[in-house]
Amino acid sequence: MKATTFTIEDIPLIKPGDDIGRMIVERAELEEHDIIVISSTIVSKSEDRILSLDKVKVSRRAEAIAKSNDNDPRFVQSVLDQSSEVLIESPFLLVRIKSGSICVNAGIDRSNVSGSRNVLLLPEFPDESAKRVKDTVFKLTGKKVSVIITDTNGRAFRMGQTGAAIGIAGIMPTRDWRGTKDLFGRVLEVKNEAIIDEFAGFANILMGEGNGGTPIVIIRGLDFYQEPCSIKELYRPEEEDMVRRALISRSV
Amino acid sequence: MKATTFTIEDIPLIKPGDDIGRMIVERAELEEHDIIVISSTIVSKSEDRILSLDKVKVSRRAEAIAKSNDNDPRFVQSVLDQSSEVLIESPFLLVRIKSGSICVNAGIDRSNVSGSRNVLLLPEFPDESAKRVKDTVFKLTGKKVSVIITDTNGRAFRMGQTGAAIGIAGIMPTRDWRGTKDLFGRVLEVKNEAIIDEFAGFANILMGEGNGGTPIVIIRGLDFYQEPCSIKELYRPEEEDMVRRALISRSV
Repeated sequence: MKATTFTIEDIPLIKPGDDIGRMIVERAELEEHDIIVISSTIVSKSEDRILSLDKVKVSRRAEAIAKSNDNDPRFVQSVLDQSSEVLIESPFLLVRIKSGSICVNAGIDRSNVSGSRNVLLLPEFPDESAKRVKDTVFKLTGKKVSVIITDTNGRAFRMGQTGAAIGIAGIMPTRDWRGTKDLFGRVLEVKNEAIIDEFAGFANILMGEGNGGTPIVIIRGLDFYQEPCSIKELYRPEEEDMVRRALISRSV
Repeated sequence: MKATTFTIEDIPLIKPGDDIGRMIVERAELEEHDIIVISSTIVSKSEDRILSLDKVKVSRRAEAIAKSNDNDPRFVQSVLDQSSEVLIESPFLLVRIKSGSICVNAGIDRSNVSGSRNVLLLPEFPDESAKRVKDTVFKLTGKKVSVIITDTNGRAFRMGQTGAAIGIAGIMPTRDWRGTKDLFGRVLEVKNEAIIDEFAGFANILMGEGNGGTPIVIIRGLDFYQEPCSIKELYRPEEEDMVRRALISRSV
């Protein structure tokens, strides 16, 4: 098996209203079932998900968390506003955001956005954002592609951050090995492989960060096209989540 | 930026004593700083990490855990024997293994090994296993390569399993973005990228599982060569690990 992966060069600074699907088509010769991995940063910018902290009204809860975390109360409030559940309050905010992902600071980015009081929120409906890119590519080229929108997340137990999928279109979220036989005819222990996170991680290496970063990666040669699909399949049901339960019971 | 990735075909069933480094060199034309990703399954087999459950003496603790988890007491005992800390006892065993990684069932594999009462333990000193492959490749070809040994792990909060690094040689474990400036001259929020896990995940996609699986992947075109290095950098210090603390305090 073989795959080639490459970044798309010369993507300009993204402004609200920019059409990312069109930008990709103008810069790369896409093939059927190519996997396009896009950093959420540019998706958020194209969707004008910029928030001025000066406009945020701070609650007493945010005030208290900000104090114990030594953080800006307005930033803390903006994290709470994006969240449906708080798993850890201090020393950092680990929350479930409304679209379902569990991440630190609701994935709000204080870098990569102009204006010293501006922050960048994650896309509000990331699957829809991915689908828009997919649909544009199809409209302009007739090619069906897979799209993964990524963020960079920390993990339990292990140091460092890795790319993770937060929105998808045209790709299976997990590869199901259930019932597959091993080399000796026994059923495999591995059940379900979260391939979209594995793609997101690798693309993250190619993207890089900061002012030398390239926010779009194409992965070619691996076909995991599927329609329909949803990132929600990747979010562990609350009642099954042992780690979430331990954190919640601790904070009560 | 561009990378090519491919599997090595025709790797035979691995037996104790087999020289994996030599097997790779005989099947692929390696280049300087290629990244070789190897499934721990074949490393364990080459190191004869096969355990017969019939030889395991069961403690009362293992008996109790086995009962509440509806598992084989001898299997539970073998998990405890490989572990330095138990984070979750039930409904499944989440442990820290002696080499430092936190994983379910100590990474012991009941599939992919011959003999219905045999299980496969992870390599005992995975960095050393990786270094042996690296050294063999250098001896036979004069090329310096990076080596990552992988396992497949579940994660907190997210469904599905992904490839994760458990042993390395000749590669930086994380890429440090501290101090890097963003597009607007501000210091980046992202700190440290766990590239070896990102490589492990992507390689896992190419490897596949089961009897169609190919346990060795080469990644070419991305240079993260570093010496010396250790997987230990990736394991979060116990006192800093909020999730571990919550789990431990809950189980006391």
